[in-house]
Amino acid sequence: MADRKKPWGGRFQKPTAKSVEKFTSSIHYDQRLYRYDIEGSIAHATMLAGQGIIGKAEAQKIVSALKNILADIEKGKIKFNASDEDIHMAIEKELTRRIGETGGKLHTARSRNDQIALDARLFLRAEIELILALLVQLQTQLVKLAKNGIKIIMPGYTHMQKAQPVLLSHYLLAFTEMFARDGQRLKDCKTRLNVLPLGAAALAGTSLPIDRKQTAKVLNFPEISKNSMDTVADRDFIAEFIFSSALIMMHLSRFCEDLILWSSDEFGFIEIFDAYTTGSSIMPQKKNPDVAELIRGKTGRVYGDLFAIMTLLKGLPMTYNRDLQEDKEPLFDAVDTVKDCLAIFTEMIGHTKFNAAKMYLAARGGFSTATEVAEYLVKKGMPFRQAHEIVGKIVAYCLKNKKGLEDLNLKEYQKFYAGFAKDIKEKIKLEKAVNSRNHKGGTATAAVQERIREFEKS
Amino acid sequence: MADRKKPWGGRFQKPTAKSVEKFTSSIHYDQRLYRYDIEGSIAHATMLAGQGIIGKAEAQKIVSALKNILADIEKGKIKFNASDEDIHMAIEKELTRRIGETGGKLHTARSRNDQIALDARLFLRAEIELILALLVQLQTQLVKLAKNGIKIIMPGYTHMQKAQPVLLSHYLLAFTEMFARDGQRLKDCKTRLNVLPLGAAALAGTSLPIDRKQTAKVLNFPEISKNSMDTVADRDFIAEFIFSSALIMMHLSRFCEDLILWSSDEFGFIEIFDAYTTGSSIMPQKKNPDVAELIRGKTGRVYGDLFAIMTLLKGLPMTYNRDLQEDKEPLFDAVDTVKDCLAIFTEMIGHTKFNAAKMYLAARGGFSTATEVAEYLVKKGMPFRQAHEIVGKIVAYCLKNKKGLEDLNLKEYQKFYAGFAKDIKEKIKLEKAVNSRNHKGGTATAAVQERIREFEKS
Amino acid sequence: MADRKKPWGGRFQKPTAKSVEKFTSSIHYDQRLYRYDIEGSIAHATMLAGQGIIGKAEAQKIVSALKNILADIEKGKIKFNASDEDIHMAIEKELTRRIGETGGKLHTARSRNDQIALDARLFLRAEIELILALLVQLQTQLVKLAKNGIKIIMPGYTHMQKAQPVLLSHYLLAFTEMFARDGQRLKDCKTRLNVLPLGAAALAGTSLPIDRKQTAKVLNFPEISKNSMDTVADRDFIAEFIFSSALIMMHLSRFCEDLILWSSDEFGFIEIFDAYTTGSSIMPQKKNPDVAELIRGKTGRVYGDLFAIMTLLKGLPMTYNRDLQEDKEPLFDAVDTVKDCLAIFTEMIGHTKFNAAKMYLAARGGFSTATEVAEYLVKKGMPFRQAHEIVGKIVAYCLKNKKGLEDLNLKEYQKFYAGFAKDIKEKIKLEKAVNSRNHKGGTATAAVQERIREFEKS
Amino acid sequence: MADRKKPWGGRFQKPTAKSVEKFTSSIHYDQRLYRYDIEGSIAHATMLAGQGIIGKAEAQKIVSALKNILADIEKGKIKFNASDEDIHMAIEKELTRRIGETGGKLHTARSRNDQIALDARLFLRAEIELILALLVQLQTQLVKLAKNGIKIIMPGYTHMQKAQPVLLSHYLLAFTEMFARDGQRLKDCKTRLNVLPLGAAALAGTSLPIDRKQTAKVLNFPEISKNSMDTVADRDFIAEFIFSSALIMMHLSRFCEDLILWSSDEFGFIEIFDAYTTGSSIMPQKKNPDVAELIRGKTGRVYGDLFAIMTLLKGLPMTYNRDLQEDKEPLFDAVDTVKDCLAIFTEMIGHTKFNAAKMYLAARGGFSTATEVAEYLVKKGMPFRQAHEIVGKIVAYCLKNKKGLEDLNLKEYQKFYAGFAKDIKEKIKLEKAVNSRNHKGGTATAAVQERIREFEKS
Repeated sequence: MADRKKPWGGRFQKPTAKSVEKFTSSIHYDQRLYRYDIEGSIAHATMLAGQGIIGKAEAQKIVSALKNILADIEKGKIKFNASDEDIHMAIEKELTRRIGETGGKLHTARSRNDQIALDARLFLRAEIELILALLVQLQTQLVKLAKNGIKIIMPGYTHMQKAQPVLLSHYLLAFTEMFARDGQRLKDCKTRLNVLPLGAAALAGTSLPIDRKQTAKVLNFPEISKNSMDTVADRDFIAEFIFSSALIMMHLSRFCEDLILWSSDEFGFIEIFDAYTTGSSIMPQKKNPDVAELIRGKTGRVYGDLFAIMTLLKGLPMTYNRDLQEDKEPLFDAVDTVKDCLAIFTEMIGHTKFNAAKMYLAARGGFSTATEVAEYLVKKGMPFRQAHEIVGKIVAYCLKNKKGLEDLNLKEYQKFYAGFAKDIKEKIKLEKAVNSRNHKGGTATAAVQERIREFEKS
Repeated sequence: MADRKKPWGGRFQKPTAKSVEKFTSSIHYDQRLYRYDIEGSIAHATMLAGQGIIGKAEAQKIVSALKNILADIEKGKIKFNASDEDIHMAIEKELTRRIGETGGKLHTARSRNDQIALDARLFLRAEIELILALLVQLQTQLVKLAKNGIKIIMPGYTHMQKAQPVLLSHYLLAFTEMFARDGQRLKDCKTRLNVLPLGAAALAGTSLPIDRKQTAKVLNFPEISKNSMDTVADRDFIAEFIFSSALIMMHLSRFCEDLILWSSDEFGFIEIFDAYTTGSSIMPQKKNPDVAELIRGKTGRVYGDLFAIMTLLKGLPMTYNRDLQEDKEPLFDAVDTVKDCLAIFTEMIGHTKFNAAKMYLAARGGFSTATEVAEYLVKKGMPFRQAHEIVGKIVAYCLKNKKGLEDLNLKEYQKFYAGFAKDIKEKIKLEKAVNSRNHKGGTATAAVQERIREFEKS
Repeated sequence: MADRKKPWGGRFQKPTAKSVEKFTSSIHYDQRLYRYDIEGSIAHATMLAGQGIIGKAEAQKIVSALKNILADIEKGKIKFNASDEDIHMAIEKELTRRIGETGGKLHTARSRNDQIALDARLFLRAEIELILALLVQLQTQLVKLAKNGIKIIMPGYTHMQKAQPVLLSHYLLAFTEMFARDGQRLKDCKTRLNVLPLGAAALAGTSLPIDRKQTAKVLNFPEISKNSMDTVADRDFIAEFIFSSALIMMHLSRFCEDLILWSSDEFGFIEIFDAYTTGSSIMPQKKNPDVAELIRGKTGRVYGDLFAIMTLLKGLPMTYNRDLQEDKEPLFDAVDTVKDCLAIFTEMIGHTKFNAAKMYLAARGGFSTATEVAEYLVKKGMPFRQAHEIVGKIVAYCLKNKKGLEDLNLKEYQKFYAGFAKDIKEKIKLEKAVNSRNHKGGTATAAVQERIREFEKS
Repeated sequence: MADRKKPWGGRFQKPTAKSVEKFTSSIHYDQRLYRYDIEGSIAHATMLAGQGIIGKAEAQKIVSALKNILADIEKGKIKFNASDEDIHMAIEKELTRRIGETGGKLHTARSRNDQIALDARLFLRAEIELILALLVQLQTQLVKLAKNGIKIIMPGYTHMQKAQPVLLSHYLLAFTEMFARDGQRLKDCKTRLNVLPLGAAALAGTSLPIDRKQTAKVLNFPEISKNSMDTVADRDFIAEFIFSSALIMMHLSRFCEDLILWSSDEFGFIEIFDAYTTGSSIMPQKKNPDVAELIRGKTGRVYGDLFAIMTLLKGLPMTYNRDLQEDKEPLFDAVDTVKDCLAIFTEMIGHTKFNAAKMYLAARGGFSTATEVAEYLVKKGMPFRQAHEIVGKIVAYCLKNKKGLEDLNLKEYQKFYAGFAKDIKEKIKLEKAVNSRNHKGGTATAAVQERIREFEKS
C-alpha cells in the first residue's frame, strides 16, 4: 500500500482496488488545469498566512515550491499517473515530497469540492477570452470581405429557392451579427462565472478564520459566492458555456452548409483554395470542401457535450456528487472544438474566391425581382395582395413561355395590368432592386456600408 | 378551389393537396399568437400610413377591424381551421372578409418571415416577464421558509453521505441562488430578443419607404435588427430561452430529488400535505410525492425541447426555410412546462412540513462533525493533512466500537493525540459546528440571516 | 369533495388540491389509449372469473358494460375531464357509474402500474404495424420510380461534389435499403415489447390466484414478463421505438435535403408538382418545397422525443416513479410524426417529376468519369496509386484549358501516358461508366434491375 | 511539399495547409483500427489476386508486408503523425515505403469510403462480442447474489415510498432482465451490421471485376451490402450501437442510484467494501460510493455520444460527406465507457455486503403489507375498490395512533370490517406476504428460484 497511500485514507482498512483507482482517476485529463490549480493554491496559501492560519514562513515555502512545480510542469519534468487521482492531489503530493509536512498545511480550510470549482472557473474565464478574440477575428475577416466585395450581387434564398437579389456583403454581415450575439452570450456567461467559489470548502464553509474577499482580490474575482452548498453543487456556468458554444457551432454549421453548396459544380459561387481542401483516395478529380464539412459535423460533437452535461446534472441530489467529475471532458471538448473551428474557418474563408460573375448570373434567374414588380404596383396604389396575385400570373406566363421578367416587353406587362409603364424595366434591374432596399437592415449598398462602418468602429 | 384559394396562389396551376394543407398548417398551435400578431399588424399599418404607403383612412379601417377581430377571438367567436395555414393568413383573411380589398394592403412591405419573428419575440418577451415573476415568487417562498426555519439543523450531504451539519435555511437558500441566476439568464435572453425584426420582409428588406424606428417605438422595442437576412434566419432567442428553461428545470429536478428522498420513510425529513400528494390504485397505504416526481420527469421534456430546436437549426442554409416553423411547439411546450412547474412547486413547498427533530437526529449521525475535530487540531498548529489522518483513525475506532464522536471521552481522544483538551466536546456540538462557519457564504446562523436580509432587500 | 373523491383516497384527510389535480392529470392525452385499456380490462376480468376470483356473472356484467363504454367513447358520447386523473380511473369510474359496486371488482389483482404498461404495449404493437405498412408503401413507391426511371443517369455526389455517374434508380434504391433496415429495427422492437406485463400488479405480483398465461393468450402475447419489478419499471420498449423512429426521420431528412437541393434553380433535377408545394406571402414567383423542409425540420422533434425519454429514465430509482407518466407524450408525438411524414413523403415523391435531361447534363460535368480513366490504366497493369496521380494531372490540365475529359483527343491523353488507346473515349461515356459497375451493389443497370426484382419478390 | 505529398494530390497546385492537415487528420484516434484495417486489406489483396486484378506474387508481397506492419504496430515500433491523415493512408504509406510501388496496387477497386465502413464494422463486431461477455458476466454475478441472498426480504419501493415487501433476489433479478434485453438489442445490432461494405468503392462500385462474395467469406460476413450508395452513406449501425449502449448505461444508472441511496446512513442497506469506495480530502469520516456515482454520471457521456451521432447524420446529403469522420470518437467513447462501467460495476457489486437485518426492519415499516389486507378482504368477496377504501382507513387510524398494521389487535381490525378473522395477523407477516405472490414473475421464493434456475440453464 505504501506508495498508494491516499491522503484521505485514515479511516480505511483496505487500499483502493487498482481497478477503482483507474476508473475514478481524472488526472489524465484534469492535469490540463495545473496552472489554475497552482494559481489558486498560491492565493489560498497567501490568504491563510495573512489570517494567521498558517505561518508566514510556511506560506512562503509553499508558494515558492508551487512556483517551482509550475515551472517544472511546463518544462515537462513532471509526469502524472493514475494513482495521483486528480490534479489537486498530484500537486499536493509533489509539494509534500519537496517541502515535507508543511505541504500538508496547504489544504487547510478548503476541500477539493471548492478547489475544483475554482480551477474550472479560472480555466473557463481564460478560455472565454480566447474564444472572444477568435470571434472578433472572424468578424473582422467577414467585414473585410464584405468591404472588398461590396459590388457583388448574389441571389438571396429562402427555402433554397431564389428569392431576391442581395449583396454578398449583406450575406456575410448576417453572420457577423450572429457571431456578435455569440460574443455577448459568452460575456454574460463570463460575468456569471466570475465569482470566487473558494471558502465553500466541502459544502458548508469552514470554522477557520478565512478572508474570502482577500482571495477574491488576488485572483481577480469581482464577487464571491454567497452560499457554500450552491457553490460546490453548481455547474450552471459549464452548461451555459457549452450551450453558447453549441450556438456558435450551429452558426458555423449554417455558414458551412452554404459554402459546401456554393462549392458544388451546380452553384459554383466560390472556389476554396487548394490548400484548404482535400482530395479523394480513389477519384482523381475531386477537390472537396472537407474543412467546411468537418466543422458542420463537429456541431454534433458540441451538441453531444451539451447533452452530456445536462443529463449529468438532471436529478442530482445536493450537494457535491462524484458524477460532477464528468463535467470536465465535455467542457474541454467544447472549448477545443469551438476554438479550432473558429480559427480554421476564419483562415478558410480568407482563402476563398467568390465568383462574382456566377453569382450575378444566378441572381438574374428565378424571377428574383418579382417582389419589385409587386411593390411597383403597390406604389401605384394597388393593394399588395392584388399586386402579388398579378405578378404571380406574370411569372406563370413567363414559365410557360420560358422567359425571364427582364425579357418581357412593356406590352406583355400591360396585358396583366394596364398601368405598367416604361420604368418597370429599370425597376427590375438587379442593382436597382438591391439598392432600393435602403433602410436600416436592408441590403442596399448604402445600408450595408453603414453597417460596415459601425462594425469597424466597434 | 374557390374556397381554398391561397393568397399566394397567383403562379400556381393546381390547388394545394388537402394532405399537404393539413401537413403544413400551423394554425392549430400558432393561433396562440393571435394577440401579438394583431398588435404587430396594428403597429405596421399605422407606420405604413405615417409613411404614406397606404392611406390614413385605409389604415384606420384596418386598425379598427383588427381590434374587432381581436375582441372576437377573445370572446371565442372566431374558429380557425387547417386551410387558414397560419395565424397570419387567418387574420388577414378575416380582415379582408370584413373590410374588403383594403385588407389586402396590410401585408404591404412585410412578409410572413419577419412577421412570425415579430410575433415570436413579442410573445416570448411577455412570457419571460411571467416566468421572472414566478421565479421571484418561488424565491420569496424559500426565503420565508428559511426565515421561519432558521433554527433547524440538518445533515449536509455529499455523495449522499452525511458530510457536515448545516442549517435547513442554508440548504433552502442554495436554491434561491440558483433561481437568481436563472432570472439573470432570462433577463439577458430578453435583452437580446428585444429587437424589432419587422422591416426585414422576406429576407432583404423592402423598396417601400418604411420607418422601422417608428414601428419599434410603438411596439416598445429599444432596438431594431441590423441585417435583414439574419433577422429572418435567426432563432437564437428561442434556443437561448429553451436552454434557460432547461436549467430551471434542472434546478427543480435536483430540489425534487431531495424532496422525494426526504419524503421516504428512511429519511422522514418532510411531510408534504395530503392535498399535494396522491395515492395508489392498489396499495391503500401509499402517499406519494407525485408532484415532485412529475416535475423531475418533466425535466426530460424541456431537455427534449432544447434538442429539438438545436437539431432543427443545425446545418440549415440561409435564410428562412420552412423547417423553422417547427420552432414554435418546443417553445410553447417549454414556456408552459416551466411556468406550470414553478407555480406548483412553489405551492407544494409551502405546503410541506419540515421535521426538525428527525433532521437534527440525522445530523448527529455519520460523524458529521469530524471536520470540526480536524480543524480543532489545525488550530493547535498541526498540518491539516496530518489532522485529517488522525481523525480518520478516530472514526475507524468509533466504527469498530459502535460509538459516535460525541460518545468518546477525553482519554479516548487523547489516545490519538495528546493535545486534545476538554473543549473538544464543545467543539463538536452541532450548533457550535454550524455557527463556527461564520463567513460570507457559510452556514452559520448569522451568515445565513445576513443573506436572508439581502434577499429581502433586493 | 364529494364529486372529486378519489378511488385511492381512504387514508387521506384532505382532498387533492385543484392545482395538483390539474398538474398530475394525464387524461387529456392518455384518453387516446381507451381502446387498449378496455381491451386489457376485458381480458383481465375474463381471467379473474376463470380463476374464480370474481364471479362469472360479475365478469359478464363488467365485460358487457366495458363494451358499451367503448362504443360510446367511439361515438363521442363520453367526455373526460381533469378530475378523472387518467384513462384507467376514468373508465373504472364510468363502469361503476353504470353497474354499481361490481365495477369496483375490476381492479382486483392489478395496479395502474401494470395496467399502463399493458396499454402502452398494446398501443405500440398496433402502431408499429401501421408504420411498417407505411414503410412498405414508401419502398414500393421508390421501387416503382426506380423501375420507371431506369434509364436516367445522374451524378453521384460525395462531399456535394460530383463523384461518379450513377443511375437515379440506384440512388432511389439506396433509400429503400435504409427503410428496409428501419422496418427490421421496428420488428425487433415489436418482438421485445410483445410481452404481457399484467400480473406484475404494483411491483411484486399479487397473492390472488391469477393465470397470466390465460390473459396473455387472450391478448395475443407470445410471452409473459418474468420479473414484476422490472415489468413496472421498464420503459425500454418506448425508448427503443422512439430511437427507431428517430432513425426513420434521419433517413427522411437526408432524402429531403437532396430533394430540396434538387428543387433549386441551380440543380433543377426535379420539379415537385404544384399541389405538393406552397408559395410565398410576399414573393409572387416562389414555389417552395415546404413539405420536404418540414419533414427535415420534424427530425428535430423526434430527436427531442428521444432525449426526453432518455433523460426521464436516467437515474430513476426502482421501481415505478411518477416521472414515468411523462413517457406518453413523446411516444405519441413520435408515432404521429413518423406516420404523417412517411405518408406525405410517399405522396410527394409520387408527385415529382425527375428531369432526366438536366441530370444527364450534370453527370457529364465535374470530371465524373475520372475514376474510369484511372481504372483503365489499372487494367493496363499500372499500380492504382500511380494511375490516380496521372489522372489527377489530366484533370488539372483540363481545368487549366477549360475542357472536359470527353473533350481531350487521344494525343492529349497520351501526353500523360503513352499507353492510352482509342478505347479510352468509349470508356468514359456515361452509359459505359455506369454499366461497367456491374456487381452486386453496383450501379450498373443489370445490377440495379436485379435488386428491383428482389424487392418486388419480397 | 516533398514529405507531405498526398497520395491524392495529382490535381492540386498547392499543398494542404498545415492547419488544415491538423484539423482534418483523424490518425490520432482512428489508428486504433489498425488491426481491422490490415485484416481488411489482406482480404482485399487476396481477392484482387484471385480475380487477376493484381498479380499473385504482388498480392503475396503485399500481404506479407501488411503482416509485418501489423506485428510492428503491436510492438509499438510504428508511430503515426498528423500528416498521415488517417489509418488507411498511414498504412498504405508504410506499405509503399517497404515494398515500393507494388504498395500502390492495394488501393485498387476500393476507396476510403468503403474501407472505413469495413474497418468500423469489423471493429464494432468484435467489440459487441466483448460487451456481450461483460453483460453475461454481470448477469451471472447477479444471479449468484440472488441465489446466495434468497432469504433476504427488503421493502419494494414505488415513488420512493415503501410499497410491498419483496425478496432482495427479486430486486437483483429485475436488473438481470434488463441486461438480458440489452444483450438481445446488441445481438440484433450485430446482425444488422454484419454485412460486407467493401466493393462499394467511392459510392458506385467499381468497373474492375471484383468478387465481393469471396471477400465476405474471408472476413466472415454472412451478407454483402446491396447498394453501394447506401453503403458509404450509412452509419445506422453506429447510431444503433450507441443507442443500445445508452440503454445499458441507463439501466446501470438506475441500479447505481439505488446503491447510492442504500449506502446512505438513512437506508444502510448495503456496505460497499473499502476497496471500492473513496474518501474525502477534507472530511475524515467520509466513505463515498464514488464508483456508483461515476457510472451514473457517465450515463450523460454516452447520451452525449448518441446525440452527437444523431445530429451529425441529420440532413446530410448523399452520399459520403466528411462530416461522417466525426462518427468514430463518439463510437469509441461509447464502447470504452460501457465496457469500463460494466466491468467495474460487476466487481463492485461483488464486493458489497447486503445488510439483511436492516432491510428486513425497513420492510416492516411503511405499511408495506396493506395490499395483503385488501386482498384478504377481496378473498372474502369484497369488491377490491371497497377493500382498498377500508384498508386506507385502517392505515389512517394507524398513523393517528402511531401503530403498524402488525400492532393492531383483531378487535381493532374488526372495527373497520366485521369479517376480519384471526388469520389476518398471519397474512401480513412479511414472509407470508412475499411468498403469497407465487406466480410467474412474482416475488415468492419459489417463483424467484425458478427464474434463477432458468438463468443458470441459459
